[in-house]
Amino acid sequence: TRRGVPEAILAEGKTPDETATLAVAAVETSGRALVTRADTAHAEAVADALPDADIDRDARAKTIVAAAPEFERPDLDATVAIATGGTSDAEAAGEAAAVLREMGADVERIEDVGVAHLGRVLDHLDTLREADVVVVAAGREGALPTVVAGLVDTPVIGLPVSTGYGHGGDGEAAVLGMLQSCTVLSTVNVDAGYIAGAQAGLIARAVADARDADA
Amino acid sequence: TRRGVPEAILAEGKTPDETATLAVAAVETSGRALVTRADTAHAEAVADALPDADIDRDARAKTIVAAAPEFERPDLDATVAIATGGTSDAEAAGEAAAVLREMGADVERIEDVGVAHLGRVLDHLDTLREADVVVVAAGREGALPTVVAGLVDTPVIGLPVSTGYGHGGDGEAAVLGMLQSCTVLSTVNVDAGYIAGAQAGLIARAVADARDADA
Amino acid sequence: TRRGVPEAILAEGKTPDETATLAVAAVETSGRALVTRADTAHAEAVADALPDADIDRDARAKTIVAAAPEFERPDLDATVAIATGGTSDAEAAGEAAAVLREMGADVERIEDVGVAHLGRVLDHLDTLREADVVVVAAGREGALPTVVAGLVDTPVIGLPVSTGYGHGGDGEAAVLGMLQSCTVLSTVNVDAGYIAGAQAGLIARAVADARDADA
Amino acid sequence: TRRGVPEAILAEGKTPDETATLAVAAVETSGRALVTRADTAHAEAVADALPDADIDRDARAKTIVAAAPEFERPDLDATVAIATGGTSDAEAAGEAAAVLREMGADVERIEDVGVAHLGRVLDHLDTLREADVVVVAAGREGALPTVVAGLVDTPVIGLPVSTGYGHGGDGEAAVLGMLQSCTVLSTVNVDAGYIAGAQAGLIARAVADARDADA
Amino acid sequence: TRRGVPEAILAEGKTPDETATLAVAAVETSGRALVTRADTAHAEAVADALPDADIDRDARAKTIVAAAPEFERPDLDATVAIATGGTSDAEAAGEAAAVLREMGADVERIEDVGVAHLGRVLDHLDTLREADVVVVAAGREGALPTVVAGLVDTPVIGLPVSTGYGHGGDGEAAVLGMLQSCTVLSTVNVDAGYIAGAQAGLIARAVADARDADA
Amino acid sequence: TRRGVPEAILAEGKTPDETATLAVAAVETSGRALVTRADTAHAEAVADALPDADIDRDARAKTIVAAAPEFERPDLDATVAIATGGTSDAEAAGEAAAVLREMGADVERIEDVGVAHLGRVLDHLDTLREADVVVVAAGREGALPTVVAGLVDTPVIGLPVSTGYGHGGDGEAAVLGMLQSCTVLSTVNVDAGYIAGAQAGLIARAVADARDADA
Amino acid sequence: TRRGVPEAILAEGKTPDETATLAVAAVETSGRALVTRADTAHAEAVADALPDADIDRDARAKTIVAAAPEFERPDLDATVAIATGGTSDAEAAGEAAAVLREMGADVERIEDVGVAHLGRVLDHLDTLREADVVVVAAGREGALPTVVAGLVDTPVIGLPVSTGYGHGGDGEAAVLGMLQSCTVLSTVNVDAGYIAGAQAGLIARAVADARDADA
Amino acid sequence: TRRGVPEAILAEGKTPDETATLAVAAVETSGRALVTRADTAHAEAVADALPDADIDRDARAKTIVAAAPEFERPDLDATVAIATGGTSDAEAAGEAAAVLREMGADVERIEDVGVAHLGRVLDHLDTLREADVVVVAAGREGALPTVVAGLVDTPVIGLPVSTGYGHGGDGEAAVLGMLQSCTVLSTVNVDAGYIAGAQAGLIARAVADARDADA
Ligand SMILES: Nc1ncnc2c1ncn2[C@@H]1O[C@H](COP(=O)(O)O)[C@@H](O)[C@H]1O
Ligand SMILES: Nc1ncnc2c1ncn2[C@@H]1O[C@H](COP(=O)(O)O)[C@@H](O)[C@H]1O
Ligand SMILES: Nc1ncnc2c1ncn2[C@@H]1O[C@H](COP(=O)(O)O)[C@@H](O)[C@H]1O
Ligand SMILES: Nc1ncnc2c1ncn2[C@@H]1O[C@H](COP(=O)(O)O)[C@@H](O)[C@H]1O
Ligand SMILES: [Mg+2]
Ligand SMILES: [Mg+2]
Ligand SMILES: [Mg+2]
Ligand SMILES: [Mg+2]
Ligand SMILES: [Mg+2]
Ligand SMILES: [Mg+2]
Ligand SMILES: [Mg+2]
Ligand SMILES: [Mg+2]
Repeated sequence: TRRGVPEAILAEGKTPDETATLAVAAVETSGRALVTRADTAHAEAVADALPDADIDRDARAKTIVAAAPEFERPDLDATVAIATGGTSDAEAAGEAAAVLREMGADVERIEDVGVAHLGRVLDHLDTLREADVVVVAAGREGALPTVVAGLVDTPVIGLPVSTGYGHGGDGEAAVLGMLQSCTVLSTVNVDAGYIAGAQAGLIARAVADARDADA
Repeated sequence: TRRGVPEAILAEGKTPDETATLAVAAVETSGRALVTRADTAHAEAVADALPDADIDRDARAKTIVAAAPEFERPDLDATVAIATGGTSDAEAAGEAAAVLREMGADVERIEDVGVAHLGRVLDHLDTLREADVVVVAAGREGALPTVVAGLVDTPVIGLPVSTGYGHGGDGEAAVLGMLQSCTVLSTVNVDAGYIAGAQAGLIARAVADARDADA
Repeated sequence: TRRGVPEAILAEGKTPDETATLAVAAVETSGRALVTRADTAHAEAVADALPDADIDRDARAKTIVAAAPEFERPDLDATVAIATGGTSDAEAAGEAAAVLREMGADVERIEDVGVAHLGRVLDHLDTLREADVVVVAAGREGALPTVVAGLVDTPVIGLPVSTGYGHGGDGEAAVLGMLQSCTVLSTVNVDAGYIAGAQAGLIARAVADARDADA
Repeated sequence: TRRGVPEAILAEGKTPDETATLAVAAVETSGRALVTRADTAHAEAVADALPDADIDRDARAKTIVAAAPEFERPDLDATVAIATGGTSDAEAAGEAAAVLREMGADVERIEDVGVAHLGRVLDHLDTLREADVVVVAAGREGALPTVVAGLVDTPVIGLPVSTGYGHGGDGEAAVLGMLQSCTVLSTVNVDAGYIAGAQAGLIARAVADARDADA
Repeated sequence: TRRGVPEAILAEGKTPDETATLAVAAVETSGRALVTRADTAHAEAVADALPDADIDRDARAKTIVAAAPEFERPDLDATVAIATGGTSDAEAAGEAAAVLREMGADVERIEDVGVAHLGRVLDHLDTLREADVVVVAAGREGALPTVVAGLVDTPVIGLPVSTGYGHGGDGEAAVLGMLQSCTVLSTVNVDAGYIAGAQAGLIARAVADARDADA
Repeated sequence: TRRGVPEAILAEGKTPDETATLAVAAVETSGRALVTRADTAHAEAVADALPDADIDRDARAKTIVAAAPEFERPDLDATVAIATGGTSDAEAAGEAAAVLREMGADVERIEDVGVAHLGRVLDHLDTLREADVVVVAAGREGALPTVVAGLVDTPVIGLPVSTGYGHGGDGEAAVLGMLQSCTVLSTVNVDAGYIAGAQAGLIARAVADARDADA
Repeated sequence: TRRGVPEAILAEGKTPDETATLAVAAVETSGRALVTRADTAHAEAVADALPDADIDRDARAKTIVAAAPEFERPDLDATVAIATGGTSDAEAAGEAAAVLREMGADVERIEDVGVAHLGRVLDHLDTLREADVVVVAAGREGALPTVVAGLVDTPVIGLPVSTGYGHGGDGEAAVLGMLQSCTVLSTVNVDAGYIAGAQAGLIARAVADARDADA
Repeated sequence: TRRGVPEAILAEGKTPDETATLAVAAVETSGRALVTRADTAHAEAVADALPDADIDRDARAKTIVAAAPEFERPDLDATVAIATGGTSDAEAAGEAAAVLREMGADVERIEDVGVAHLGRVLDHLDTLREADVVVVAAGREGALPTVVAGLVDTPVIGLPVSTGYGHGGDGEAAVLGMLQSCTVLSTVNVDAGYIAGAQAGLIARAVADARDADA
């Protein structure tokens, strides 16, 4: 754990065995392991290596959380909304959600509100406005965080996703568009769901600490 | 005139004298001259060189149209809407408007409906939906054509504008975003107001010809 | 269906099963499914899942159309010509053709008229000039849309294709060349056959509606 | 004012007169004008046009704030630290500071703590750790936000600055480095001091609101 | 003189005085000076410094040739055709022509045969086919060398020109398009008229030497 | 055959069967087939499909030439030298050699004369100087064509090769270096051995024709 | 051996057999073979082909050194420190270490001192300061060489590593950051461990020679 | 002074007055000021502000050194050779020379040994081989450091220079070529003469210290 952010084990490029070994070590050291970009083989190896742990796997997000039975997750009095433009944003958004849940934030998911269907964004305005922070994942042209940031007063973090093909594909247009946004938002790298979630978590914690301090 | 599109004299990089000489030649050959990216000095030289012509200058668009008194502009029974995100899009949009007027289309301008203020786009939905073609000029992240194309059934042409600074500035993010758009639109190059207008004019003419044929 | 454009299911990156499930849902909702970038396994899964549907597969275009027997395709009184430079442009062009047929346009294919053999373009001038819109697919240096747009009065949509290797390969030179074209055309992204077809379809529909209105 | 963020008048590319006219309008509408990227001529024109206003000019930051005598600035119970690597970061950092002061946050400046002299960063650890949010401006290789984010528990916003020459110059290396940072931070565009400040202000306000709510 | 190619003095970035001094030295050493990218001030300084020389200035090409009265230019029995797409290609093409004349080749100029007007290329087919080598200068999308190379049996050298604005402007699309050409051609850098001319001259000399050897 | 250059069948991306079918057609039409980027499976399919043809396969170059027994190759009285920097340049250089042999030129191969061992280039100076044209293939930093062009009076064609890893790898540094060369040379795209060979062949034929004309 | 640097056989892209053949030749010619980017199959083939050689394989670095039993490695009185930011830097750093050991330098490894944990760098200050040269391998934003170069008086060579994903990934941000570093360092290409090691070895040898000369 | 390297005042972008003020401060603090990228106005302001200092200005290198009369420059028993390809490399090379002289190294200049004239490099082999370190400045394709590194046993530092125009110009091809070099060298950024000199100086000092230690 650094900055209250659980360190993640990036399974991609590691064998199931290597991943499981790192997960066991993390559970031993800090009570919990967060694994990202994990496929089924990684998940099985982790489950086998930690038979007593509580395992929480999100296959679409490709995340695994393994916690010692006695591990106590923090609990923050703060809410983060995570909006996505479409189904291809699910992995990055789910990675952000996993980190946020482990940091103790309440997470509200708002899915498939792509800019091509503005009505769907407007349906969720209350949820977006009531959150303490908003993470908006979007691929292709990456316009969704700009649209959301024009509608809410909360801080918005843009999370560009590597969808799209051809010129400006793989998230290039999306990350440039968020950096150039004509609204106020800050950005993380393409597919950096872990970073977007952790940054939102740091803000949520700052807000929750302020709430608690005065409570 | 090629493809019914008036050829334009690009004043930028030419002296006022050179520009005026080309304008005189165009008026003599085709009854009319369209000058783009013209500053005040170009405008004065053209006016001096063509004392009998009807001169129509749009200083914000940096366009000049000089027509022989007897010149008869075509008149198309078709409407093109041109929307802009903000004041910096005025030059590119105005260039498109000038070409379209010379091709005979009716032009509807919708200004400053940037995505950061969605309400303003929604206020103009009827105009956008009733047009035969829509040109949408936008700089920075260039999200506006995507938002508009999600709201209308007419063909939309994206016109990226070279606003924005830093990474992806000078229209780079905007043109990539339009190519990556998650809606249906086609795109022209950064600041290519003349091309966007001419392409919209070719479509407007196809529609007007269809109207006339059956009339 | 959005904007009268049939939504497409992008099979690439989906399993045959996932693809078939989405196709079944589309047929149930809208009477028809359009699947793009589908290989043989996707095609078989779709056929198995929709035993009663009319299936129309174009293996070279990698498209599948599955329609309920009672589905009635729209019929537009408008023609779109689709020209290609060479055999490697067949997939993108075929994707455009599939969307256009589903939108009801009449499609004229003109194949292998690459700029290296100008005579072949000239042989097809009448077809190109009589169409209401022209889509021109080209890879490598992408010069063909420019050559065609210099020869016709109809609107031309450039469709860059990801052929070519080395510097500027994968369609980069082609898309830049179309954006820089010294003629009037608008462009879609590299390999974006679906978008080129849909944009041409929106224009064809505008023309057909004008024809019908006055009929 | 949108999202409680004072809109700024970007003087760069506007004449002193145009700038002054916009500033007068802003003071009339919202009680205050914030002008960025203003040189001496802009400052004089604004001062002349608003003889009764309180004018606050920061020449190094190139900002001007003009407020009606009766204008009441908000006051947030929250602190933002702004650190810079060197003197060339002063303009971007000062722009951030100006927005933050107008949003009512307490601003702590920490200057010239470039990574080449680590000791200087360490000297300011307490200030950095006690702030509610930290903005870190850095050019060249842009390593400073990464170093700071490794030392504090507060949210860090990276602000890349367009120093540096040659390959990766003009802030390119800096913005890429911040997006790739091996710590947790979010980023804004090169030289986007206004955006960094506004985003930090939105976070500061969320924290201050939480403090106030419970007070 | 290296490889029989007269070395050129690149005036751009040099003062008129520096340029004149280098020109005097070149005339003294090799009987002749070739100056490229020279404006009027450079031309005057060279003329003043070499009162006895034969001066040949091409203002549009921005070249100056100064030769001692007794200097004997080589004479090659070989012809190079130089075609341009439009007036903005005149400088680069003229630079190529100047080098070629100094190497002794016969130069045939074919101007303004841009691909948007195919007929004009076809009018000059005989000249293009009878040349020993063809240099084709083109900006924007740079399609002209590809079209020409599809029509002739002679070697074609593509000379991309830095016209065009926006994405892929400044000759970027043109040079990539020539490298990706679906015909056979070789390319030089953007605006490298001197190199294109010299390479064509080396080929012309090889051909002329073969002619002479057997004569 | 276009421009006397045998058209090549690019086997890469085609099945052995498709390749063989095209080869049979080429042999029937023009007496000969040239296949590039062919692996063993392609070679076997071609051999099986053309049992009577003379088959000439260069496995390192990945080329196959299949000729009808009665086919008569042209014979040019001209020599092309092909130099390579190292073994990774063998495929591109071999592709060039295959085209040249089919065009009838005499080919001289000079291998592994990379700039890191200047002595080796100097050992082959006579061969390089006696050739009518020189093709120089080089990857990594691509300096070899520049070094060779500084040593010979013949035209040099640079052939960049996609070796190298990291920043500027895959031939990017090589192609840029050749375009920027401080000597006189023209360039083809990365790995475009076929184009380099064909362009050298066109020059060789021009020289041979001049020799013959006078004979 | 060139410049006292053992030439390396790059196994990547070669079969085990080809690699073993080259290794045998190298041992015969120079007493020793250094193989880089070798996997297990390459290692086994080399071991089988050289049954009498002393084999030293570093699986993490993917290097193999095979030396004839009588081979005498040079021994330099000079030390090179090699620092890494994290485990993904191990391959590049290990490649550098292998070359350095073969050149005879003493190598000190300092691992996982990433800038996100500054304390760990400071713990190793003495080792870094006492070395004659320092190689610093780092991926992601590549800030570590800058931090180290600000702390030591020895020459530092930056070795960017191809970790990182998204925009600026694959070592792009790292190499640009090192070129832009606000401290004094020189750089090699991404993943160029062999070059970094060899350059450090040339410096170490210069120092060792100076030590010896005076001894 | 950091790392024994005199800090430099970058005059470019500073007024003469600001530059002079910083120079006075540097002389007071450390006995000496090194100013880079200084024009005549900067030089005059520095001279006026420091009437008692010893001023050493190199107009071509655009450097100024101002030293207090009592200042004692270090003296290293080590030599650095600095080679340039052409006159345009003089500024970057001169900047490197100025830093090296201030660090006390003996500097040997070798000018205009561009790769297009190999003989000139070979003439200077002894000087290059006898130096302790070599800095090689080159623009355009940047091949010279590669050629030199293939000829000497000393460490070579490549210094890319921003000459060249068109694609890969402004030093881009040069820096990529040095990173991709097929010999052993390390690189600094484009035009970073100060960094190249300082890095060479650190190596020279390491060698000189080794010489002294044993003396
Ligand atoms: N999906 C992810 N995105 C960004 N960083 C990650 C991700 N997963 C793990 N990390 C971080 O990457 C660093 C290196 O991880 P590892 O390679 O597992 O040692 C650690 O600081 C992890 O917290
Ligand atoms: N320095 C700045 N950086 C980014 N945005 C700015 C800056 N200054 C003003 N803006 C915003 O840019 C938009 C357009 O400004 P204007 O061109 O003045 O109408 C407004 O939303 C301003 O708030
Ligand atoms: N327009 C040009 N394009 C390319 N190279 C040129 C041009 N003009 C001169 N050169 C060459 O550039 C090199 C350096 O020229 P200079 O800077 O005048 O010494 C010489 O080899 C010239 O022949
Ligand atoms: N290795 C190659 N490099 C460049 N062009 C090639 C190559 N092989 C074949 N071609 C050409 O590519 C074009 C398309 O080939 P195909 O796709 O086989 O019809 C034809 O003009 C071929 O002559
Ligand atoms: Mg909670
Ligand atoms: Mg009308
Ligand atoms: Mg129909
Ligand atoms: Mg306050
Ligand atoms: Mg002649
Ligand atoms: Mg022969
Ligand atoms: Mg030792
Ligand atoms: Mg000395």
